Amino acid sequence: LLNLEFSFTLDPKQIQNRKSTLWRYREAIPIIDDANIVSLDEGHTPLLALRFHEHLVHIKQDYLFPTNSFKDRGATVLISKAKELGITSVVEDSSGNAGSAIATYAALAGIGCRIFVPENTSAEKTVLIQSAGARLEKIPGTREDTAAAALRAAQSTYYASHTWNPYFFHGTKTFAYEIAEQMGWQSPDVLILPAGNGTLVIGSYIGFSEMVRLGIIERIPKIIVIQTEAVAPLYRTFHDGSSEIDPVISQPTIAEGIAIAQPVRGKEILRIVRQTEGTVLTVSEDEIRQALTSMSNLGFMIEPTSAAAIAGIELYTASSDRQEKIVSLFTGHGLKTTILHRL
Amino acid sequence: LLNLEFSFTLDPKQIQNRKSTLWRYREAIPIIDDANIVSLDEGHTPLLALRFHEHLVHIKQDYLFPTNSFKDRGATVLISKAKELGITSVVEDSSGNAGSAIATYAALAGIGCRIFVPENTSAEKTVLIQSAGARLEKIPGTREDTAAAALRAAQSTYYASHTWNPYFFHGTKTFAYEIAEQMGWQSPDVLILPAGNGTLVIGSYIGFSEMVRLGIIERIPKIIVIQTEAVAPLYRTFHDGSSEIDPVISQPTIAEGIAIAQPVRGKEILRIVRQTEGTVLTVSEDEIRQALTSMSNLGFMIEPTSAAAIAGIELYTASSDRQEKIVSLFTGHGLKTTILHRL
Repeated sequence: LLNLEFSFTLDPKQIQNRKSTLWRYREAIPIIDDANIVSLDEGHTPLLALRFHEHLVHIKQDYLFPTNSFKDRGATVLISKAKELGITSVVEDSSGNAGSAIATYAALAGIGCRIFVPENTSAEKTVLIQSAGARLEKIPGTREDTAAAALRAAQSTYYASHTWNPYFFHGTKTFAYEIAEQMGWQSPDVLILPAGNGTLVIGSYIGFSEMVRLGIIERIPKIIVIQTEAVAPLYRTFHDGSSEIDPVISQPTIAEGIAIAQPVRGKEILRIVRQTEGTVLTVSEDEIRQALTSMSNLGFMIEPTSAAAIAGIELYTASSDRQEKIVSLFTGHGLKTTILHRL
Repeated sequence: LLNLEFSFTLDPKQIQNRKSTLWRYREAIPIIDDANIVSLDEGHTPLLALRFHEHLVHIKQDYLFPTNSFKDRGATVLISKAKELGITSVVEDSSGNAGSAIATYAALAGIGCRIFVPENTSAEKTVLIQSAGARLEKIPGTREDTAAAALRAAQSTYYASHTWNPYFFHGTKTFAYEIAEQMGWQSPDVLILPAGNGTLVIGSYIGFSEMVRLGIIERIPKIIVIQTEAVAPLYRTFHDGSSEIDPVISQPTIAEGIAIAQPVRGKEILRIVRQTEGTVLTVSEDEIRQALTSMSNLGFMIEPTSAAAIAGIELYTASSDRQEKIVSLFTGHGLKTTILHRL
């Protein structure tokens, strides 16, 4: 597992008249030459206030991306880097949001793309991947077998992975920059984030850490991680206090975006949670469904994975009487998962 | 058919530091009290340049709305007005983008909503409408029977219509304001717009006319209307030179968003096309499918109706050697029509 280290300066005053995309934090994004940027002018999503148990929680509308999820943040930067490196073909393993995002930006860049998915993945899930012209590699067996097949392919092809490739996180971190700017260059007190592979947790931490280092903000928010009870290795390990991620057996869940039994960067995620004095909470399938319905009733059609975070907000705010600035997000649009909605 | 007349002033300099949503043109939007605004911070979508036959065409990314289509422009303003009027229940007839948008903003406002659709409408089309909790009224017979049923219901309930209700157009017109601002407060030379009921044509015309009147821009762009050969009443009437809309028999088309045999505001649309020295073009089903594929290959998953406009751009730019600033749009996301994509 590799992380990036590089230094840069960033002056909020110089940013304010730039286009409202995530590339307005240009100095923070490790692409050398502007000519390599592969962008759809994505990002800088709205930050809307919703009420939960007398708390106002600000929700980033990260379903408003070209492929309808926050994963475009990582994809635009990772694929720009691939272009900068002269890469002509990439592989990735994800049948969901990350696969759709990588396939789309690869298409935009004219870079070949193969997406590895478990053999039993439904055609509905991969419609964006196929629309973008990526090749689907269907792998028999478990999700872990698919990951292993992608890793083997990655020995000879660039691995555009949302978990392994550090450039992905340096796109995802723009989530933190946008929140800080939208709050008047301040940190929230609490971030409530759904986590499976934890790309949002790690990306947010990188972004807020950089802004503290640059003297733009004062502190990193407390990070509260939400998992589904059905697949909760981070929850179990965090509360056990163990240093290695406890293996778990996955139970069925509608929050498939966070149904990760063995998160590759699990230790890194838990180190971040501990360092920011956050915690890991779990929500039940019933609570996720209720959150999905309550958001639908307000007019927000979100994916079930996103509803897990909303259920987490319900849980956290119900038992808190602190006056805190809380931020969370809608991770993806519900149109991606209409089959689940119809169940 | 009613239109609105009201006067206001708008100073581009005062706008530039406002939030990047369509409500930044606040003075132009006929809502009296800010407290009545029902908004998801929508709009101010990116304007991306794509190449067609040696012409750079700027495409507004209007699939990046909460309900994944430009119809949210009209819905946020119309439902805000309904709230301002103290309306508690609305009706609308549209199984597509307009129905999804009205249902969503009504839910957000806590306003009851019934959406009239033809009995044979597939469940896939209405998933956003149902997710938002609107009641579906399934009407036997043709699309015209559904419209007639909605009109009857509208005798006792507020008609949140994207064709009849003038407030809808005063939301859609923000499309014009955004284009002008994104081009440095200048008009494009040509707008290429798909049209069935023509809400974009009328909305754009209102917006550009207002800006000319305010002295912000110099002229209204030439408006080129694109219809599918399968349902082309505007095309036929325009080239006949007749003053009444010629009735047509609809043929099957994948561009269902513009499959309108008798556009309610047809005469108004043609008056605009003639006044701006534009024209009406048609594209074939094959050309629409090709445009859908060429956009997919670039990473843009758009709805087939939107591909009709792209096919229109292909047609227009292939035969033009003028140096013109051309603007068009992606009307809606392809995830709304995945069944058509799979065919």
